[in-house]
Amino acid sequence: MNKTFVFHYLSKMTLAGSALFLLPAIVSLIYGEFDIVLAFVAVGAGLAVLSLPAALIKPKSKDMYTKESLVIVALLWIVFSIAGAMPFFVSGEIPHFVDALFESVSGFTTTGSTILTDIEALSHGMMFWRSFTHWIGGMGILVLALAVFPSSKDSMYLMRAECPGPQVGKFVPKGKNTAVYMYSIYGALTVLTVILLCAGGMPLFDSVCHAMGTAGTGGFGIKNAGVAFYDSAYIDGVITVMMILFGVNFNIFYFMLIRRFRDVAKNLELRVYLIIIAVSTVLIGANIYPIYESVGSSFRYAVFQVASVMTTTGFATADFNLWPAFSQMVLIMLMFIGACAGSTGGGFKVQRLIIIAKNMGKFFKKLLHPKSVNLVTSEDKAMDADTVHGVHCYLGIYLFLMLASMLLVSVDNQDFATSFTSVVSCFNNIGPGINRVGPMENFSFFSDFSKCILSLNMLLGRLECLPMMILFIPSIWKKKF
Amino acid sequence: MNKTFVFHYLSKMTLAGSALFLLPAIVSLIYGEFDIVLAFVAVGAGLAVLSLPAALIKPKSKDMYTKESLVIVALLWIVFSIAGAMPFFVSGEIPHFVDALFESVSGFTTTGSTILTDIEALSHGMMFWRSFTHWIGGMGILVLALAVFPSSKDSMYLMRAECPGPQVGKFVPKGKNTAVYMYSIYGALTVLTVILLCAGGMPLFDSVCHAMGTAGTGGFGIKNAGVAFYDSAYIDGVITVMMILFGVNFNIFYFMLIRRFRDVAKNLELRVYLIIIAVSTVLIGANIYPIYESVGSSFRYAVFQVASVMTTTGFATADFNLWPAFSQMVLIMLMFIGACAGSTGGGFKVQRLIIIAKNMGKFFKKLLHPKSVNLVTSEDKAMDADTVHGVHCYLGIYLFLMLASMLLVSVDNQDFATSFTSVVSCFNNIGPGINRVGPMENFSFFSDFSKCILSLNMLLGRLECLPMMILFIPSIWKKKF
Repeated sequence: MNKTFVFHYLSKMTLAGSALFLLPAIVSLIYGEFDIVLAFVAVGAGLAVLSLPAALIKPKSKDMYTKESLVIVALLWIVFSIAGAMPFFVSGEIPHFVDALFESVSGFTTTGSTILTDIEALSHGMMFWRSFTHWIGGMGILVLALAVFPSSKDSMYLMRAECPGPQVGKFVPKGKNTAVYMYSIYGALTVLTVILLCAGGMPLFDSVCHAMGTAGTGGFGIKNAGVAFYDSAYIDGVITVMMILFGVNFNIFYFMLIRRFRDVAKNLELRVYLIIIAVSTVLIGANIYPIYESVGSSFRYAVFQVASVMTTTGFATADFNLWPAFSQMVLIMLMFIGACAGSTGGGFKVQRLIIIAKNMGKFFKKLLHPKSVNLVTSEDKAMDADTVHGVHCYLGIYLFLMLASMLLVSVDNQDFATSFTSVVSCFNNIGPGINRVGPMENFSFFSDFSKCILSLNMLLGRLECLPMMILFIPSIWKKKF
Repeated sequence: MNKTFVFHYLSKMTLAGSALFLLPAIVSLIYGEFDIVLAFVAVGAGLAVLSLPAALIKPKSKDMYTKESLVIVALLWIVFSIAGAMPFFVSGEIPHFVDALFESVSGFTTTGSTILTDIEALSHGMMFWRSFTHWIGGMGILVLALAVFPSSKDSMYLMRAECPGPQVGKFVPKGKNTAVYMYSIYGALTVLTVILLCAGGMPLFDSVCHAMGTAGTGGFGIKNAGVAFYDSAYIDGVITVMMILFGVNFNIFYFMLIRRFRDVAKNLELRVYLIIIAVSTVLIGANIYPIYESVGSSFRYAVFQVASVMTTTGFATADFNLWPAFSQMVLIMLMFIGACAGSTGGGFKVQRLIIIAKNMGKFFKKLLHPKSVNLVTSEDKAMDADTVHGVHCYLGIYLFLMLASMLLVSVDNQDFATSFTSVVSCFNNIGPGINRVGPMENFSFFSDFSKCILSLNMLLGRLECLPMMILFIPSIWKKKF
C-alpha cells in the first residue's frame, strides 16, 4: 500500500474538515454559549494543527487504487468520529469519553442511537452539532471534500468506497462534478425541509436540526419525546415524505432534473422501495388499529414509523415497544432491508435485495431447466456475474459481522430482543430497536465494551464493511503489498 | 414433469412404508396395549390400500431427473407426515389433528419439538412411535427404501434430494449399495448406543427410545424432565458422545471401516465441527460456572447442551432458559450452524459455512490483488464455481424462508425471542428455543396457524428447502415442462 500518500491525503482531508467545527461555533455564539464556542474552536484548531505536518509533505507517488481508497475512507471516518466526540467531551456535556465517542459515531454514521438520558439539557451548539454530523455523514465526508476541492483523477475510487450500494453510478464523467451535483441536490432538499417545517410552526432552530436529521436519515432529535413532542399531523407528514425522498437513490433526482423521466419510471429499485413501504404501512396500520381506534391515527403512526425505519432514520412519533409483536416484527425486517443504494440511508439496500431475488429466480430456473442460459438482469441490461457474486459475498460478511457482534454484546446479559435489535439497529444505522433500546429508551445502560462494539458496528454498516475490515488485515500495512 | 411416474414411484414407496407401522404395533402388543395395536395396524393397512392402485399402474416412461426426484421426495415426506400423525389421532392420545401432525412432522424431520404437556401419559406404543419416526427420518425415508429395494438406475438423484449438504458423496458406485452401507453403519451405531445406555442402568425400553432419538439427532424423550430425569453423568456422557458421532458426515465412518484414516484426518469439516463444539463448550462452561459452582458440573451441562444443539438433537439436561444471555446467544448461533453435511443432523451445515468462509477469503484477496487468480478449494481439490454459487443461493433462500416464517408466527403475539427462536429451532430441526419454547417448555400454546407454519419449517429445513419449494411452482405441474 502507498502509505505515504494515504497519510498525506488523509491529513489534507482532516485539515479541510477542521473548518466544519466553525459552523456549530457560530451557532453557539448566536445563543451566547461562549464556553461552547471555545470548545468547538479549540477542537477545530487542534485538528488543523495535528493534520498540518503530514498534509505538507509531498508524497513521491500519487498512485491510488482500491485498497488505498478503502483505507483512506476508513481512517477518515475514524478520525472524524474521534474529533467529533471531542466537543461533547471537552465541554463536559458528555463527560465520559466512550459515551461521547458513541454519540459522535452515531451522528456521523446517521444512526441516531443516543446515550443521552436528557437531550434537552444540551446547549444549542451541541444540539446543532449532533444534527450537523448527521448531515455531513449522510452524503459522506469525502464526497463533501470532493465537491469542494479540486479532485484527483482517481476520485471515483474514493466515492465508491464511501457511497452505499453494490454499484456507484456516475452522473457525469468526473467524480468531482458528480459530488457537486449530489451535494447541490442534497442541500436544496434540506433547505426545502427547513422551509416546510417552519411553515408548520416549528421554530427555526428545531426545523434546521430536524431537517439535517431527516436529510442524513439520521434520527437525532432535540426533544426527549422525539418528533412526538410537536404532535402535529402536518409535521409528521412533512418528515415522512422527506424521509422517503432521502431514502431514494440520488441518481433519480438527477434524472428528474435533466428530464429523463422514463429512466425514473422504469427504475425497479424505486418501485420495490415504494411498494415495500406501502405494504408495510398497510400491515402495521391494520395491526395497530385496535390501539388507536382511528384509521387516520393508525396510518399516520404506521407510515411515519415504516418510513423512519425503512430509510434507517430512526425518528419516532409512537412507542412501538407497545405495539403488537407482528408490527414489531415487520419493523425489524425493514431494519435489515434499509433504503435504496446511493441514498443517504443505510441497511442492506433494496438494490442488493433485488439482485439476490433475481439470482434466486435464475437458480430455480436452472434447477428445472438445466440446459437453459439465464442472465440476471438489472434495469434491462445484463448484470455481470461479479456484481452478483459481490452481493452474495456482502450478505455473508454482513451476517457474520452482525452475529459476531450479537455474541459480544450479549456479555452485557440483556434480554435477547435487546441484544439482537441493538446490533441490528446500529449496524444498519437506524437508531432504536425494541425492548430496552426501544424508541423512547436510550443506549446509556450498555457497558463501555458494548458501546465500543456498537460504535464499530455503526461504522461497519455505514461504510458497508469492506473499508473498516481491511484495516484489520495485517498485510495491508506492509510497505509493498 | 413425468407425473405418472412420480405418482407410481411415490405409491410404491408408501406401500412399502406401510410396513413400518408393524414395529410400533408389536411394541404395543408386548405392553398389552391392544387398542393401540389396532390403531397402528389400521393406519398401516389404510396406507397400503390407498397406495395400491397407483403402485400397480405401469408408467410409460421411467425418466426421472432432478425435478421428478425433488417432487417425489417432497410428496413422500408429506404423505409420511400425515400418515405418521394418524396413530396419535385415531388412538385419541393427541385428539387435535394439527397437534398430531406437528408431532409427526417434528418426529420424521428429527426436530423434537413437542406439543405434549405430559409425555409420560402416552402409551408405550406411542412413545416408541415418536422415537422411531426420528430414527427413520434421520437417515431418510427414501434412503431406507433404496437400501431395502432393488434400486433404479437414477437412485442417486433421489439420494441427493433427501440427503443434507451441498454435495452428496457416493461411497460406492451404485446408489443402492451406498444406501445399504449408510443404514448398516447407522443401525450398528444405534445398537451400540442401546447397549451403552442399558449398561448405565437405563431400562431397555428407555434405552431404545433414547438411542433412536440420539441416532436421528431428533430429541424426543419419554420423560417430562427430559434426559435430566436420569440424572447420571454416565448417561449424559454416552448421549453426548453419541450425539457428536451422529452429527458427523457418514462418509467418515465409511472411510474408517475401509481403513482410509488419512482421509479422516485431513477432513476439514470434521475438524471445524469438533473445534466449534470445543470452543463453545469452554465459553458456556466458563459462563455458567457461577450457577453450578463446580467445574465438573458446569462442563458436563455445557458440553451436553452444545452437542445437543450443534447436532440439532435438542435433548436437555439443564434449563438453559435460566443461563446467562451470553450462553443463550452461543447456543442460538449454534442452532444456525448445525451439524456436518451427510450426517443425520440439520441446520445450515458446517460444510456450507466452510465454503462461504473460504469464498470470503478469496473475495478479500481479489479485492486487494485484483489480478491474481484464486480458486476456492475444498479438501485440496478445486471446488467448482457452481457449488459455491449454490451455497450462496441456499443461504439466501434459507434466510428468506426463516424471516418470512418469523413474520407469520409473530401474528401469535409472543415475545420476540420466542417467535425468533421457535422458527430457528424448527427450521434447523433442533427442538427447543428460548423463553416460552425453552427446553422445559413445549409448543402447545401456539395457534393452529403457527403450528402449521412451524411444521412447514421443519420440512423445509429437513429437506433443505428445494424439494418443498418446488411444489409451489405452478409450472412444475404442467404436463410438459
